[in-house]
Parts: sequence; C-alpha cells; structure tokens
Amino acid sequence: MKILGIDPGYGIVGYGIIEGGYQPKMIDYGVVSTPKELSLPERLEIIYSSIETLIKSYTPDVVAIEELFYFRNQTTIIPVAEARGVILLACKDNNVPIYEYTPLQIKQALTGIGRAEKAQVQFMVKTILGLESVPKPDDAADALAVAICHGQINPNLNNNGV
Amino acid sequence: MKILGIDPGYGIVGYGIIEGGYQPKMIDYGVVSTPKELSLPERLEIIYSSIETLIKSYTPDVVAIEELFYFRNQTTIIPVAEARGVILLACKDNNVPIYEYTPLQIKQALTGIGRAEKAQVQFMVKTILGLESVPKPDDAADALAVAICHGQINPNLNNNGV
Repeated sequence: MKILGIDPGYGIVGYGIIEGGYQPKMIDYGVVSTPKELSLPERLEIIYSSIETLIKSYTPDVVAIEELFYFRNQTTIIPVAEARGVILLACKDNNVPIYEYTPLQIKQALTGIGRAEKAQVQFMVKTILGLESVPKPDDAADALAVAICHGQINPNLNNNGV
Repeated sequence: MKILGIDPGYGIVGYGIIEGGYQPKMIDYGVVSTPKELSLPERLEIIYSSIETLIKSYTPDVVAIEELFYFRNQTTIIPVAEARGVILLACKDNNVPIYEYTPLQIKQALTGIGRAEKAQVQFMVKTILGLESVPKPDDAADALAVAICHGQINPNLNNNGV
C-alpha cells in the first residue's frame, strides 16, 4: 500500500510517500513552497496543482493528513485551513481516499507516547524508515510521520491490503 | 459591474449577485447547502462545483467575500476556513478577481457604523436593494451585504467601470 502523507500549510506543504508494510519503505519526500509575493488564491492554485501532480506521479493508494487544531494565538490557522481545504479537494477530485490523524495519534503511533516531543517523532521517522538522517525540512518529516502513522494504525492493510 | 458576494461556510454558503452602481440592483441570492451526512472532502467538492456554476451562470465581474476572524471558542472556524479556501480556488480557477472585506468594513459601508448590529446591516441590505423584506436566510443576506460593500467601497467602478 502506497501512502502519501501530507503536512498541510500555505507557505510550505510537506509531503512524504512511503510503501506501507511490516517494514515501511521511504519512496520520496519534499515540500511544495508557494512564493509569499503571490496572493492567497494564487498560492492555493499552486497547492492544488502540486498535490494533483504528486498523486499522478506516485499513484498513492491513500492520503494521510494531519488534522488541524485550534490553539490560542494561532494567527496562521485560517490560511493553513484554507490551504488544507484545497488539499482535501485535490485528493477527492483525484479519487484518493483520505485518512485524517490527530497529532496525538501520530505521536502515539510512532513513539508509543502521545505527548512525545517533535525530536522524538523525527528520530522515529528516521529509524522506522532506515534513513541515515532525519528528513529535512520539518514539514517533510511531519508528512512522513503521518504516512507511517496510517500504516501503523491500519496493519491489516500493510501487506498490500491482505 | 456585476458583483457576486459570498458568505463562506461548509454547511451553508450564502451568495448574492447584484448589479453595482449608484443604485445597486439585486439580481439573485440564495444558499448552497451541503448534506451533513457527507464527508468534508465531499462537501468541499459540492462547494467548488456550485461556486463554479454560479460564476458560469451569472458571469460576475468580481467576487466579494468576507474575511474570517478568529475568536475564542469558534469551534467551526477550521472547516469554514477549509471551505473558504475551496471557494477562493473556484473563483481563481474561473478568472474572477476576488476582493476581501472585514466584518468592520462591511458594517461601516452599509450602515456607517463599524459596530452595527446584524439586524441593522440586514435592514440596510433590504433598503439599499429596494426589497420588500430582509432576504432569508441570514447567509444570503450577509452575502448581499458584502457585495453591496464592494460597490460602496469602489464607487469609481459602480457605473460599469467608469
């Protein structure tokens, strides 16, 4: 099962593609960046088409994406959510099933600890995927984390859906 | 100048189309509703296609849309913003310029008072457009209000762009 993990954002969208399974394998990771000189609608258009391109290039079986939560003083939550809406639309339009995970679920799945630090989660991304170093930037590592989380939470799907 | 005003939401999107000018005229108004039984991505898809249909049917020169603000305990702000992102994308994909207005600007433009009550704004929508009663539901009235606001703030564009 090929999983496309996405870390939503409007300036930077992280993505990570893995082959799920008993021993998940990293296929690719990176970020989609949108120039801050552009208007938000222009940035949303880039995000939509980039997600569509990723789906067409890697043909993932599922998309795993982090749920957004609302905290005090989160000034960017509105544009991040606007971008996330466009990402969900791009996945839906391209017929890829979407699974959403909370930060707690992701931390729990990767480290066994719901309150794990970011560095612990990143260390586990590196370890689980057998990488030499933690993937950079953080947005890409976070996207790989949610992809791994989906594989861990759905072990019955890990062996090609068996 | 034909103005499409939009009140963003994910359960209900209000819309109002007016012909701007010295004496603005109401062309149509209504709401796009999305069934709550559907998933958010499915609802976003309905919103995108409905906005596209409105643009194709009424060929507005501009879209005017309310900016979202973040208050304490606004539990729906995240899905509303996700829907708003999709609305912005639909306008951009269909090449309609987008203008954003704050609630303060809308109240100020319609009533002269930035802290006007909702009922005062709705009364002014009815009065300015020469309607017999306040348009219902509120989402449609709010959409007409932002459309009127755009015409008031851009008087040089009111007489067909003269």
